[in-house]
Amino acid sequence: MATTPSSDAPASPLLSEVLARFATTDNPRLRTVMLSLITHLHAFVHETAITWPEWEAAMGFLAKAAAVTGPGRNEFIALSDSIGLSMAVLAASQPKPPGATEPTLIGPFFLDDAPTVAIGADIANGASGQKLYVSGRVLNTAGTPITDAIVNVWQSDDRGLYDVQDNFDPANMWGRGRIRCDDQGRYAFWSVMPTAYPAPMDAALGDLIRATTNRYWRPAHLHFAIQTQMAAPLVTHIFARGSQYIDEDVAFGVRPSLIADFVPHRPGLAPDGTAMAEDFATLSYDFILT
Amino acid sequence: MATTPSSDAPASPLLSEVLARFATTDNPRLRTVMLSLITHLHAFVHETAITWPEWEAAMGFLAKAAAVTGPGRNEFIALSDSIGLSMAVLAASQPKPPGATEPTLIGPFFLDDAPTVAIGADIANGASGQKLYVSGRVLNTAGTPITDAIVNVWQSDDRGLYDVQDNFDPANMWGRGRIRCDDQGRYAFWSVMPTAYPAPMDAALGDLIRATTNRYWRPAHLHFAIQTQMAAPLVTHIFARGSQYIDEDVAFGVRPSLIADFVPHRPGLAPDGTAMAEDFATLSYDFILT
Repeated sequence: MATTPSSDAPASPLLSEVLARFATTDNPRLRTVMLSLITHLHAFVHETAITWPEWEAAMGFLAKAAAVTGPGRNEFIALSDSIGLSMAVLAASQPKPPGATEPTLIGPFFLDDAPTVAIGADIANGASGQKLYVSGRVLNTAGTPITDAIVNVWQSDDRGLYDVQDNFDPANMWGRGRIRCDDQGRYAFWSVMPTAYPAPMDAALGDLIRATTNRYWRPAHLHFAIQTQMAAPLVTHIFARGSQYIDEDVAFGVRPSLIADFVPHRPGLAPDGTAMAEDFATLSYDFILT
Repeated sequence: MATTPSSDAPASPLLSEVLARFATTDNPRLRTVMLSLITHLHAFVHETAITWPEWEAAMGFLAKAAAVTGPGRNEFIALSDSIGLSMAVLAASQPKPPGATEPTLIGPFFLDDAPTVAIGADIANGASGQKLYVSGRVLNTAGTPITDAIVNVWQSDDRGLYDVQDNFDPANMWGRGRIRCDDQGRYAFWSVMPTAYPAPMDAALGDLIRATTNRYWRPAHLHFAIQTQMAAPLVTHIFARGSQYIDEDVAFGVRPSLIADFVPHRPGLAPDGTAMAEDFATLSYDFILT
């Protein structure tokens, strides 16, 4: 049986014809997805009476997105982020109970082969910016430590750039690392303060944003992806409270629970006993997995 | 005032946030279109609970479409056609009164600089296939001839190929031409019988069609685009009655009113007085513009 997607209006003869053909799809999940997608796209066209010149403009817009998409860049991810769709996918498929850390989007800069470093090591590897010490624990919702967690972190430097955007050398990554928690679920690392940065505005996303919201910044944040066999994995950000653009993230990724204090310090002893001769910052954040 | 798009369900906090930001769009038409599109895409994600791996697969699918999109090819047009969306745009924005010729999609092979030829000339220019004589009139819905109409025609040969798909030489186009109607609205030309052909199945469209409908042919047709100052322009096809795949056009472009008899003839005199030494066919079709 084909799933009948909901719709505001009775299907047109054309839509009925399209749905009937896609209802022959063998894979039941793909059938459900396609029938819903087709129904909604037709409803959109009907509701707005999209004209042929507008359709042609849309096809040109997609071609412009295509022209910059390739190894290392997918403009369609940026577009999905920019209309909140990536976050909607997380909200729809990864709802979290109260107390659990909320997920947010993975973004385009994750690498699955970042260097593994010891707890407390410095992942900056030359990234520029004020020194930042980050520590905390990975727990389940009952407060029990997750002892096999691997904390992936990646971030921009104080120019707002990631290593992959700056003459990237895979043998010399910076601002990213993988840390295995200890038997108390603890993680810690040194790095640098991240900085707000603009979304890439040189192609289709730029055309869209300039013509609509004119909001194209991401507030300062650290990316985290936590892998474990003991709980559901988590992909999220921690945003710096007070960061410029915190209320207008182009990707709609900010959740209040993900905003934390990056505490400024004068020169002196850091939490891990390091004697700091210059100003530095600390962040303490516990991740609660389900 | 922002237009409020219809929706089955109250907006989530996330969707409300996205809509509020796009509601600041200056251009009222773009605002309406984006609010509707965003609402429907979020409803689709919510309704189907799209998972993160599914979203990643979708982003990979779009990247695969992007990889083959460039000068001379736009895979997103093929995808729009394949879910009936191009036809939905025509139905939504170019509704025709009873008696008027129905529009259909333009497809990827139109060229705006095809050679202008005299009424009754042969546009085949070497295209292979059985000879075909096409004639008719361009009229308005009251039956009055449209005397300034220019009839653009383009078509495949008996291999199912267009000139642009076969070592294209812009100085030597074949299977296409522009004909100016006479003062009775009459047009006529010689060409060859068109043939059914498959949609390009080597990229994203192919992946989609194989996984869903497995219907990827276009039945035999001639393309027409009629330009005039005296009525609304018309883009349509005429399909050959009895063509294989007439009931399963990948682009959903077939309308019953656009199926016509391509009448077979034994050797003898053609309607224009040409003595034919071999079998040929004739098509007579009047276009009714609004």
